[in-house]
Amino acid sequence: MKKILATGFEPFGGESINPALEAVKQLDGRIIAGHQIITRALPVVQKKSIAAVSGSIRELQPALVLAIGQAGGRPEISVERVAINIDDYRIPDNEGNQPVDAPIVSAAPAAYWSTLPIKAMVERMRRNGIPAGISNSAGTFVCNHLFYGLMHYLHQGGNQIRGGFIHIPYLPEQAARNPGQPSMGLETIVRGLMLALEAALETGEDIKMGAGKIH
Amino acid sequence: MKKILATGFEPFGGESINPALEAVKQLDGRIIAGHQIITRALPVVQKKSIAAVSGSIRELQPALVLAIGQAGGRPEISVERVAINIDDYRIPDNEGNQPVDAPIVSAAPAAYWSTLPIKAMVERMRRNGIPAGISNSAGTFVCNHLFYGLMHYLHQGGNQIRGGFIHIPYLPEQAARNPGQPSMGLETIVRGLMLALEAALETGEDIKMGAGKIH
Amino acid sequence: MKKILATGFEPFGGESINPALEAVKQLDGRIIAGHQIITRALPVVQKKSIAAVSGSIRELQPALVLAIGQAGGRPEISVERVAINIDDYRIPDNEGNQPVDAPIVSAAPAAYWSTLPIKAMVERMRRNGIPAGISNSAGTFVCNHLFYGLMHYLHQGGNQIRGGFIHIPYLPEQAARNPGQPSMGLETIVRGLMLALEAALETGEDIKMGAGKIH
Amino acid sequence: MKKILATGFEPFGGESINPALEAVKQLDGRIIAGHQIITRALPVVQKKSIAAVSGSIRELQPALVLAIGQAGGRPEISVERVAINIDDYRIPDNEGNQPVDAPIVSAAPAAYWSTLPIKAMVERMRRNGIPAGISNSAGTFVCNHLFYGLMHYLHQGGNQIRGGFIHIPYLPEQAARNPGQPSMGLETIVRGLMLALEAALETGEDIKMGAGKIH
Repeated sequence: MKKILATGFEPFGGESINPALEAVKQLDGRIIAGHQIITRALPVVQKKSIAAVSGSIRELQPALVLAIGQAGGRPEISVERVAINIDDYRIPDNEGNQPVDAPIVSAAPAAYWSTLPIKAMVERMRRNGIPAGISNSAGTFVCNHLFYGLMHYLHQGGNQIRGGFIHIPYLPEQAARNPGQPSMGLETIVRGLMLALEAALETGEDIKMGAGKIH
Repeated sequence: MKKILATGFEPFGGESINPALEAVKQLDGRIIAGHQIITRALPVVQKKSIAAVSGSIRELQPALVLAIGQAGGRPEISVERVAINIDDYRIPDNEGNQPVDAPIVSAAPAAYWSTLPIKAMVERMRRNGIPAGISNSAGTFVCNHLFYGLMHYLHQGGNQIRGGFIHIPYLPEQAARNPGQPSMGLETIVRGLMLALEAALETGEDIKMGAGKIH
Repeated sequence: MKKILATGFEPFGGESINPALEAVKQLDGRIIAGHQIITRALPVVQKKSIAAVSGSIRELQPALVLAIGQAGGRPEISVERVAINIDDYRIPDNEGNQPVDAPIVSAAPAAYWSTLPIKAMVERMRRNGIPAGISNSAGTFVCNHLFYGLMHYLHQGGNQIRGGFIHIPYLPEQAARNPGQPSMGLETIVRGLMLALEAALETGEDIKMGAGKIH
Repeated sequence: MKKILATGFEPFGGESINPALEAVKQLDGRIIAGHQIITRALPVVQKKSIAAVSGSIRELQPALVLAIGQAGGRPEISVERVAINIDDYRIPDNEGNQPVDAPIVSAAPAAYWSTLPIKAMVERMRRNGIPAGISNSAGTFVCNHLFYGLMHYLHQGGNQIRGGFIHIPYLPEQAARNPGQPSMGLETIVRGLMLALEAALETGEDIKMGAGKIH
């Protein structure tokens, strides 16, 4: 059976859990549109995160890769549009690296687009009652780092594997410790990710749905 | 068996559902700490909402009344501290009333405190992983109107019935139609309300937990 | 000549300046609608702030008292509607007091309304291009404490002195040290306060302008 | 004398003024670090905005180009890091164009970096008391369109002209009509832009100052 690789990061930034990791545990082994989901936990570490995802791609040869990360403070599931070739870490990663304005890959493009149908994914989630939106920046920390490294690897590979990144909110238990922050239940997150993956598998050319931002 | 009266508002402001109404449907008939929850739907209408809750109190003679309303845009369950004696409706209520700066009850106090142990309720929810906080303003629309009318009725009555108000976030399906808004799953909301009611029933004098705001 | 008393707080919460104090320095001695503005700096201290304003009122016998405080994080000049009888300090005041859920004045009303024409003040500012709004909560720290104490003093006094409270944003130089926070230039703040005071002096019964909040 | 080209957009989105246009009017003719500022108003129109800036560059042969746009809702002066090759307009531009997910330039890079020293510019503003920050997304409307087109033109040209984009907040008079929105006085904006341009002219390689975002 064809495979989907879904990755989730380990906890970081003082949190003891990462909703992305909890979500991929739930996704592991599920079947969507004739594809089986295989999942991997990734370290929140510069370079090692990219090496880990690249290794898993070589091992599994999936049809599609979806990397998932926590975006504490965001209220909805956000499908990232673009990864940029810069590291500018506001906090150290889990091994203490804190690069400022360093390229992720030297002499490589400034940015890569997600090769997933991001609008179809958002539309599928919203239509089914899951709060979702497009994001035009995955930040400049390890989430963007991994997203960029993933897309660079896929472009170098000469293969047909599609890839992208989704940010998810805090879980309620995290927001209970961070008063005032929005959250989303794990069940809603998992249902949203399943819908997003289903849309990604069923959509060739992305739909034309306006979801831009003025600034 | 002793009774708790829990009320939820009907939909308003262009929404086809109200999470407060959905939540009280789930609460109806449940037993907490030796009390049975009886629920009522309330109209989002000036005066009629107060008349409805007063009638239900006379009918049921509950030990405790918790009124519940939707606060679209808030990320957590917020336990209201105080009701103020003013109507200033930004939008018309469900029967077209739109008072501006009119007292809810003439020649009555400027405000009433919730008589529920609001800090114990927040602490119980947070400790169990439910995002919760104290709010110092229930707004100036029908939620505050009903909250004020409820507390005025209970104070006039010479009885021992305690009462208060809780605002809850949008449901995910509402946020899916209002991109960028925070939400909370119904299961989390219901679990939070059960914990809040349990704490209210088990707590005499409220705990001293700082949850103030600078401004 | 009739007098207006305008008070501004000293710096607190780690800031080296307080825009309220900077603003009242600019207001000192100005004439509005036949009244002269006299200003006083107030300590950000429980009880002492109230004692200071009461002493100044006895000394000056002003026609109107406007207390002004900093609301870091708010984007506009906000005219407070109501003061509540509670101290719940998220941080210690400038002498280390940090009460939790204590009444400001025992056996006193739960709340006092501003006796200034708050809607006319907001309307006058907006009409002249100054960002302004109504706030339904002055928080539970020293600003609300002073506001409540001021209104209680004026009500006890059997006099005709009107009083109220205005919160103002950070100055740009404060926001430059607190990235992401909104701010307002001192000139705009001072112009707004002059307009608000002018409207307060020229308005008897407040105008009916909707400025309510749903929640 | 060497020249700087500073552009500001015309009003859009229902506003009758654009702070960017007001700011460049103030900048016109000023001298900074041996360069004279020449300014141009640009239409908020797909393609025409790029044609206009390209024409002005050919005409003026400036050493540096700074394009300035309004970001209603942002509280500080934000220096943009990167322009992306996509048009996704949430509202129509001033001639009714509303492209969805169309490339700005076909067969061109996904993104261009600002070639201005963005960190030095932010640091210079903050040090002088002007609220400022780095932004990792200029949106997907005409501001990003012009920014991308400008950088593409400069890269194609084989010249040494540096370029970048700055977003500025609403003016107070705009926020007075859009309650709840942050704003910044024109004097503060102009002073910030002067400092940013000064830092841009005086800085070769950008400073290493962390200003990243987690997501």
